[in-house]
Formats: sequence, structure tokens, C-alpha cells
Amino acid sequence: MAITTRATHACCGGTLGFYSHQSDSLGLEARFAVFVPDGASATAPVPVIHLLAGLTCTEETFLIKANAVRFAAEYRIALVATDTSPRGAGIAGEDDSYDFGSGAGFYLDATQAPWAGHYRMGTYIAEELPALTEASFPLDGTRRGIMGHSMGGHGALVHALRAPDRWKSVSAFAPIVHPAAVPWGEKAFTGYLGPDRATWAAHDATLLLQAGRTHPTTILVDQGDADQFLDAQLQPWHLEEAAKAAGQKLILRRHADYDHSYWFIQSFIQDHLTHHAAILCR
Amino acid sequence: MAITTRATHACCGGTLGFYSHQSDSLGLEARFAVFVPDGASATAPVPVIHLLAGLTCTEETFLIKANAVRFAAEYRIALVATDTSPRGAGIAGEDDSYDFGSGAGFYLDATQAPWAGHYRMGTYIAEELPALTEASFPLDGTRRGIMGHSMGGHGALVHALRAPDRWKSVSAFAPIVHPAAVPWGEKAFTGYLGPDRATWAAHDATLLLQAGRTHPTTILVDQGDADQFLDAQLQPWHLEEAAKAAGQKLILRRHADYDHSYWFIQSFIQDHLTHHAAILCR
Repeated sequence: MAITTRATHACCGGTLGFYSHQSDSLGLEARFAVFVPDGASATAPVPVIHLLAGLTCTEETFLIKANAVRFAAEYRIALVATDTSPRGAGIAGEDDSYDFGSGAGFYLDATQAPWAGHYRMGTYIAEELPALTEASFPLDGTRRGIMGHSMGGHGALVHALRAPDRWKSVSAFAPIVHPAAVPWGEKAFTGYLGPDRATWAAHDATLLLQAGRTHPTTILVDQGDADQFLDAQLQPWHLEEAAKAAGQKLILRRHADYDHSYWFIQSFIQDHLTHHAAILCR
Repeated sequence: MAITTRATHACCGGTLGFYSHQSDSLGLEARFAVFVPDGASATAPVPVIHLLAGLTCTEETFLIKANAVRFAAEYRIALVATDTSPRGAGIAGEDDSYDFGSGAGFYLDATQAPWAGHYRMGTYIAEELPALTEASFPLDGTRRGIMGHSMGGHGALVHALRAPDRWKSVSAFAPIVHPAAVPWGEKAFTGYLGPDRATWAAHDATLLLQAGRTHPTTILVDQGDADQFLDAQLQPWHLEEAAKAAGQKLILRRHADYDHSYWFIQSFIQDHLTHHAAILCR
């Protein structure tokens, strides 16, 4: 599990590093970033939150724009940020769309040619990246949370509902809560998973809740009411209804005037770190 | 003074807008950004801090990467961010260097051909942008501060020392404190001001202090000791010595391990907003 250090920076009383490695899941080089607060060590590992960004983003985006590091440092929580897709798979058309292919891996394992070989962000997020980072940094894998924005909010919700033992806390900003029912999700699922909608249910937070999958903690979701994707792609009311029916504790906050940008995320990021810290820190 | 709104975003309990206008000083279209906390009005204007970014940056950089907005909102201070040079002047070679021409205006008025016509960021920062923004937003021009990074730190120090009545508070991250003596400054001053070094003194914070120009408030400067430009370009000891000799109050903090990046800035930005607020807010 060799890791190449691309850059490290002192930040907010800790170290933020940008790394690459050869990913077994993806069969490609992959990039990720890790923030570790000072004082963490093998004998005193810290909780960790994985950050999943949205369409077109990279492992840098959430860290640069969300202002999460300051609050992670205050709570003594590590951060791991992943890329949004495999890179350089060399598949024809991979770079043609902002919402499919590179930059748009949807945090799942593709089953359809030509994507099935490399587009395996599901396994990468669920298994490889936690194992890699927890073997290489002083992170406590028993206190691991997940957070995301937009497509990454979808990823955070789905991964947490599918494996609550793996992800002890979960929150999202403006998530795609019901991808099987909106254009972004239909395009991605058709391409990566094929036309049989029965296979989509395992990758849709609303359908997972409807199937009885719940998370033992409260899910925190923030959504801007001026979000340009609210009605067409995000539709948070599906999550609200499914959570209510499933008995899933959910705090869904709607914010007048806020849009889909990281200006929205940075406005409420402190609350998300607090939410995760309340579960992960002890 | 017509302003074109390029985008606005709700952020941290206020509004962050990106704008353009036809600049008289520059003879070109110029871009800037303004953050105004909610509740500011013509009858209740708020203090304002101007943000000057470093080489290669734009009016977006400081706002995206420094995490200043949250603390500006907490203190009820507005922010104005400017671009780092004129854009689109059409001068041969303008885009050839990262440290001269576009992205590297050094916040001064060029006197040498072919730069003298458009490269007038000195007048733009000192006069046009404050007048424009204070006529168009609820900003209190009697409580106006200035802050910058690297080349922008140079700009903040020089403008504050030259016009302390105009700039009531001043701070800098990793500033170029003695441009007349380092390669970045020598290149820029030779190109913009010509070879007569006597004309450079009005644009060099260390030389201004040596000439008796001081600011009535304490100047706050943060500098990382792992800054890759520390010894060759920044040399903060010149500022320290000149301030001491001039009786200028200066807090110069050196931070082990921190580099020249915005990861450094975001680590200490709260202290800078506090410093300005202590002077500007009442």
C-alpha cells in the first residue's frame, strides 16, 4: 500500500496532505487528501470523517472551499477527501459530460461495459480508501463518519445506510436523495448499472429507506431553497417522507436564499462537524 | 458608476456578490467582489476591509480560500476583494510572466511605457474602488481597513502607510515588505516605474517607514517559517527593523511549519478579522 506524497501543508494546527496511490479497486492511480490534527498518533488515533464532493469536483474541492479544516482541528477529527471518479481510464466518451464518466463516478461500482472495469468508486470508498488511510495515518476506524455534497451527499447517505457499522455518523449538503427518479441519477444509473431499475435500489437513499435500511444515528441534511437544482435533481422531500415512514431520525434544514455552491456549505459546515463530533468523539 | 452583477450568493448570513464595471483608472473592465452582512443599510452602514491577493490571483481567490467571510459576518464587517491587475490591456508580453503584467499589478500606478496607460492599480485601489463600492453598497468609508497576502501584503502595507486616514487598520500575511531589495519587486518596479530607484521608495513599506511614514495603529503581520519565499522575496526582518526604528507598532508573528499557501492564511484569518474589528467596529 505505497502512498506517494504530492504535497503537505501545515493548516489550523494540523497537517493537510495530498497523496496518490495505485488503487486496486480502480486499477488506476488515485488521489486523495488527509487532514490530521496535531497530537494524533498510533496510540492516540483520532476519529475521521470522509468527505465526498459533487459532480466535476476532485479530492481538493471540499477541502479548499468548505472551510471544514478549522472545525475538524477544533474537534480533533481527521478528514479524508476522495476524488469523484477514476481518472485516466481511457474509456471513449469518458470526459464528454460533466454528469457522467470522469468527475461523476456516483460512488458506486459500475456493472456495465465499458465502465465496469475501472469505475468502482463504491468499493474504493467503502473498503480500499478506509483501509489504506487507517493503515497509514493515526485514524480510528471504529469512529468513522461520512459527509458529502450533491452527488457526494448521495454517496454519503447510500454508504451510511448500506453499512451503518462502517460509517458511524452521516450528514449531507444538498444531496441527490432519490437518484433513481431524477435526470442526473437516471443517466448515471443507466450507464453504470444498466436499464434494470431493480439494480438501482441499492444505490438510492430513498429506496434504501423504503426497503427498511436505516442508520442508528440522526442524519443531518442542509438544503438551500435557492438551490438551482432543488426541484429537478435534489427533491429532499423524498428523503423526508421515506425517513418518516422508516422511523429514521432525520434533521432536514431548509435555508432561504442559499444556493448549491460551497458558499452555502461553508455557511453551515461548523454544524456538520459538531454533528459528527457529537457521535464520534469521546 | 454602473455595476454589472455577475453572481450573488447567500453566505454566512450575508450576501457575497461578484461584479464588474468599466474602470476609469484602468480604462478597462474590472472585476471585484463584495460581501455585505445582513442588516447593513444606508442608515446603518458597516465597516469594510479591502482584500488584496497575491501574484497570479484574482478577485475570487482570497474569498474562496481564506475563509474570511464567516468571521466578517460575525463581526458585521463587509469585505471588498479586488483583482490583482488590469485585464485585457492588450500589451505585448502581458501574460508571459507569473510575476509581471497580468496577475501582478503590484497595486501601483505604472509610469513606464507600455504599462503606464492601463496599469494603474494604485489609483484604482486607493480611490476608485472605495468610491465605487461605498456609493453602491452600505459601507462606512470612515471605517475602512486593508489586508493582503504576499504581493497583496505589500499593497496593504504601502497603501496604509501612505494614507493612514484612508485605511484605518492594516494587516498582512507573508507580505513582500521590501520589494526594492528582492527579485519580485525589482522586476516589477523596473518594469512599471523604471530604473530610477528613487521613484521606488514610495512603493516599499520598509523604505516608507525609514522615511518616517507610520500608521497610528498596530500593524499585524503573520509569516510562516516554512514559506518557500521567505528568504528570497519576503524578508520580514526588514519590516521589523524599520518599524522599530520608526516607532511603528508592529506585531510580527512567525509560525513554524507554515508555508506561503492559503492553508496558512485560513489558519490565522480569524485573528486578522479580530484585529481589524478591534479598530473598525464601535
